[in-house]
Amino acid sequence: MARERSSDLEVVLVNGIPDRQVAPLDRAVHFGDGLFETIACRRGGPRFLSLHLERLELGCARLGIDPGNLDDLRGEVRTLAREVDSAIVKVLVTRGTALARGYGVTGREKATRITFRYAWPHETPSASQDGVQVRTAAMRLGENPALAGLKHCNRLEQVLARREWTDPDILEALLFSSSDRLVSGTMSNVFIVEGSRLRTPRVDLCGVAGVMRHVVLREAANAGIPVEEAVLSAEDLLSADELFLTNARIGIWPVRALDGRPISPGPLTRRLQQLIAPLLEEPVDA
Amino acid sequence: MARERSSDLEVVLVNGIPDRQVAPLDRAVHFGDGLFETIACRRGGPRFLSLHLERLELGCARLGIDPGNLDDLRGEVRTLAREVDSAIVKVLVTRGTALARGYGVTGREKATRITFRYAWPHETPSASQDGVQVRTAAMRLGENPALAGLKHCNRLEQVLARREWTDPDILEALLFSSSDRLVSGTMSNVFIVEGSRLRTPRVDLCGVAGVMRHVVLREAANAGIPVEEAVLSAEDLLSADELFLTNARIGIWPVRALDGRPISPGPLTRRLQQLIAPLLEEPVDA
Repeated sequence: MARERSSDLEVVLVNGIPDRQVAPLDRAVHFGDGLFETIACRRGGPRFLSLHLERLELGCARLGIDPGNLDDLRGEVRTLAREVDSAIVKVLVTRGTALARGYGVTGREKATRITFRYAWPHETPSASQDGVQVRTAAMRLGENPALAGLKHCNRLEQVLARREWTDPDILEALLFSSSDRLVSGTMSNVFIVEGSRLRTPRVDLCGVAGVMRHVVLREAANAGIPVEEAVLSAEDLLSADELFLTNARIGIWPVRALDGRPISPGPLTRRLQQLIAPLLEEPVDA
Repeated sequence: MARERSSDLEVVLVNGIPDRQVAPLDRAVHFGDGLFETIACRRGGPRFLSLHLERLELGCARLGIDPGNLDDLRGEVRTLAREVDSAIVKVLVTRGTALARGYGVTGREKATRITFRYAWPHETPSASQDGVQVRTAAMRLGENPALAGLKHCNRLEQVLARREWTDPDILEALLFSSSDRLVSGTMSNVFIVEGSRLRTPRVDLCGVAGVMRHVVLREAANAGIPVEEAVLSAEDLLSADELFLTNARIGIWPVRALDGRPISPGPLTRRLQQLIAPLLEEPVDA
């Protein structure tokens, strides 16, 4: 009997072995004790692979997970990308099989590496050009500096926030934290433009330090655009001249409406889209 | 080649099938998108099974997971308990295999049920009698009412808090939240005694509504002891006359030292231990 599986999944490797399953004792199953990366692959190569692996390595260090040899992982992602024109490769590194019951670790756990290749998703062709409609989530994110910035596998908040709406015309929700800070979307980072200045929420209490967020901050700074990681409020969001979302796959999506209120995709958003466009079409590893 | 596995694991069933593995696409692996119960089984029967299944059902409802027929689960736990004198049965219910990439759900997901039976752990014989040494965790728990009270699978905070110490004489750490509220231990609830009054932290912003916490609150109230679920601070903790921990396995552990400061296990703790003792030795289902 064929297992039910995600229709867009092409390949799955567990510790390099095709179609292997995961041990029920894996600590990812029990505790979400792992990290992941979602890597856009174009024209046979992974985009920003070094940035993804740097963040993964940093996350492993912060959680105390020994990821093993990252060169194996690097090679695996490259091989998966080479076999097709475009794909999404998701890499998941867990702390491995639990060697004892409970939260404690022995230090002898061996990380589990799971790699998925998915078909490149059907594009929403207008999203990059015309912008997307966005809502504000009702749920607020908990704040914990020990987990902030990491792309870890404790994602129930994002799952619940994504369950708040079903309207297919709304592509993302913006989230605030328990102390009323603007944080991010459910699967994207958010930037606001104030005059000629670019601002994005700090990710020191919650949120993910996205790879495309990093690229946009870097490219903007290189182009002489004033950029700032800041504590941002609902007022900052409402008074923004422009608003856009980033993630590793989508690049930059202008926001054209927030909770039904129209916003015009503006000139700084367009300029940043032009700046990063060359980095998105080819597999750029920096 | 034998897989590495937890040395105390006796049985694992995935959707009722022995030694089955978990799909790499299971949403527990990716997002910690599930719930669990840890059920103490004594003399061939599960203790407080109805309370565990009620909490599981409530958690599934809050997360929007359809757990399927809980009678199957109930029968499975009873069968696993019947085969041995004492055991820990852990039940994990996940939202099931992801049917699409990303956080969104289709509503057609079918829950995965994983059941583990572990050997009853080696007792720390003095823990119940003499009490345990406890520390205060440095890490603070994030606050999110949407997840508070649930025994969900997003447990990185507990994993990190448990990693803060290695001294085997310290059996638990107490955690505060980001707004300085006393919450719980990493794997237990906490009670303080103030004079003749019993108080335990509310679990409306974070923490787990433990089954033994429920039993102790109920038995205390039935015995005419004043009980209160309250917002508790570090000052409340420091000024407590008595301090104890609860969970489904341990029952009540008096705290005999907090961060090296001695506390005497006191008369109300002892009285509560006596009140619940009959419920711990036999498989009581209420």
